[in-house]
Amino acid sequence: MQLQGKRIVGSRVRQTKGKTRVAGLMSGTSADGIDVAIVDITRQKVKLAAFDTFPYPPALRRQILRLCRPESARLDDICHYNFVLGEVFAEAVIKLCSRSSIALSSIDLIGSHGQTIYHNPRGKRYGPRTVRSTLQTGEPSVIAHRTGITTVADFRPRDMAAGGQGAPLVPYADYILLGHKRLTRAVQNIGGIANVTFLPGGCNQSNIIAFDTGPGNMVIDGIIRLVTAGKQRFDRGGKMAARGDVDRRLLSKLLRHPFLRRRPPKSTGREEFGAAFAEQLYRRTASEGITDADVAATVTAFTAKSIARAYRQFLPAMPDEVILCGGGAHNRTLVEMLQNELPEVKMLSTDNFGISVDAKEAVSFAILAWATIKGMTNNVPGATGADQPVILGKIIPV
Amino acid sequence: MQLQGKRIVGSRVRQTKGKTRVAGLMSGTSADGIDVAIVDITRQKVKLAAFDTFPYPPALRRQILRLCRPESARLDDICHYNFVLGEVFAEAVIKLCSRSSIALSSIDLIGSHGQTIYHNPRGKRYGPRTVRSTLQTGEPSVIAHRTGITTVADFRPRDMAAGGQGAPLVPYADYILLGHKRLTRAVQNIGGIANVTFLPGGCNQSNIIAFDTGPGNMVIDGIIRLVTAGKQRFDRGGKMAARGDVDRRLLSKLLRHPFLRRRPPKSTGREEFGAAFAEQLYRRTASEGITDADVAATVTAFTAKSIARAYRQFLPAMPDEVILCGGGAHNRTLVEMLQNELPEVKMLSTDNFGISVDAKEAVSFAILAWATIKGMTNNVPGATGADQPVILGKIIPV
Repeated sequence: MQLQGKRIVGSRVRQTKGKTRVAGLMSGTSADGIDVAIVDITRQKVKLAAFDTFPYPPALRRQILRLCRPESARLDDICHYNFVLGEVFAEAVIKLCSRSSIALSSIDLIGSHGQTIYHNPRGKRYGPRTVRSTLQTGEPSVIAHRTGITTVADFRPRDMAAGGQGAPLVPYADYILLGHKRLTRAVQNIGGIANVTFLPGGCNQSNIIAFDTGPGNMVIDGIIRLVTAGKQRFDRGGKMAARGDVDRRLLSKLLRHPFLRRRPPKSTGREEFGAAFAEQLYRRTASEGITDADVAATVTAFTAKSIARAYRQFLPAMPDEVILCGGGAHNRTLVEMLQNELPEVKMLSTDNFGISVDAKEAVSFAILAWATIKGMTNNVPGATGADQPVILGKIIPV
Repeated sequence: MQLQGKRIVGSRVRQTKGKTRVAGLMSGTSADGIDVAIVDITRQKVKLAAFDTFPYPPALRRQILRLCRPESARLDDICHYNFVLGEVFAEAVIKLCSRSSIALSSIDLIGSHGQTIYHNPRGKRYGPRTVRSTLQTGEPSVIAHRTGITTVADFRPRDMAAGGQGAPLVPYADYILLGHKRLTRAVQNIGGIANVTFLPGGCNQSNIIAFDTGPGNMVIDGIIRLVTAGKQRFDRGGKMAARGDVDRRLLSKLLRHPFLRRRPPKSTGREEFGAAFAEQLYRRTASEGITDADVAATVTAFTAKSIARAYRQFLPAMPDEVILCGGGAHNRTLVEMLQNELPEVKMLSTDNFGISVDAKEAVSFAILAWATIKGMTNNVPGATGADQPVILGKIIPV
């Protein structure tokens, strides 16, 4: 019996000596730009071959942010910019190849997260059922056509069809990259929000836990922008925080935030720790005469303490190793504070495993695409709440 | 070397003794409801196993029509109803199986056109390039998950990425279903608009021509609704037209419509032959005292003559056989008129080939999905204007 479908994916997604070269594309909700990572995946290892970030042109970024709000998003714009973003994503892959002297034709597969313009994980009623939904843009047919590379995209809808929240998806990549037979590990991403993937020793897809621990860089960045009147967008290397002292009274007040007490699975965002939170906090510290450096130290400690407390309260065991990634891994003051809070763990970063902390998210979507093409289920029900493991994504064959 | 991707599509899209059972799903721009066809495809033949139409609930239809207009479409509704339609499409497949005693598990593959909510084939500028775009709803991840069947959907974007208009897509199915080694055939669809696929004897994908010939049932239906004050929506069997006489003067005026003179590739729609056209025509015939039956006969002759003229003017050769499909194939007066206009051709319908004229479009999307899974290019550049043959669609594996 000749199996169908062989030709479509089989003949086009090559695997040279067991190695698959995959490009991963990611653009976050802040719509700053496109992260592109190119990795070589074998059964044993994921090796980063190239990485770069391609900022969106300012006019395009403004347009994307308009697409994200029901009040300003227009049908014709959604349709148009979905295809425009497909072009821009394809160009980013082509540019990275050119910059890093990688032949485009050596890439076997692309995994694209896309640009989320709407996400409704709680769902809305339709008749007797609650329908969850999500909408990513960056037309993958355009990416596949322009690059000539089979593309996997739109990973979130299938998990939502299976009753999940469609997020987080990165824990699967954490499991593939960093799951260990014996050691228990926590992969701690510190982006705007901080989130942890808990990988027990000898873990499998069914005993992984992942949730948001609370603020990552968001409150720190917000405060730095305010105290520098916008001259600095973040505390490079944690230098300002290093000059200050933590205000114990303010810190203990911050740590009473109700999100920190909520049991996982849980997720948070700008609604809770965004610009409004930072502004309110800054007004208070200014009126109380707390110095800028002390405020910076205190909000940095807030992130470190909220991560450490989440581990003690909600993880089934303290990990042997914590592996950091995301921009917060560059903040030395934050990392030191976290190590002080968790003296019993070994503090590492994905750099120690050959994946730069900035590239990690784009790498994750390369890994997700690779799993989809392999026919492997690649959601983590313990992270998304889905009622079963499913294969995520849509395959655009070339 | 173990090829990747085998498992994903190969093991799940079965082929029992060379037979693939595929469900095709179609909903047109009028958003009346969902056509579902189940076919058994072998290398030799496509056999229709079941067909039915599932009207949308009126509230859902109104909502869909709201989604189609930039003035009334909201981002959150687009996101939500994309998933709702996925549910409704999946239910339609499940219901048809139940009604026709076909085991859902016997279906190997689903091909879903989706519900188009926006289509911009001419494109819009972005920087130096013109970006064509289209937006179909009816989330295929939901269809795949609910049915447990690998689904191929969203066929139009890839053709547009390749420089095509993303339409028409049905000519590929005409070619697979009705292409003949020796005979030259024209597949004449008579829906609201009439369109022809010209299949020269021994044709291949590169010498097929397809274009809209002009009005199909749209003007006839519009007139019938007006003369019956909405009591009839169409001229069942062409009975009213059969009672009337063609008004020669009016007919020759209608035939001067500029669309009929334009050279293919060309397409038309409601903008040219919709309600406004029928109303203007009806006002004129009423004022001139032409009887209702005579008007019905005249607009029926308009459709027949415009098809026949398009053949003589724009086809490279007169076909040996004309194979009718679409609702207009039920209009006996129209079919007789067309045969009179084209006395040299043999007039058949897809019924003669085992595919009911109503099921033909849904069957076409089953065939398109089958070709995608086989890794076969399935656009017709001579119909869409694409600069190359490409594999259409996105594959959602289960």
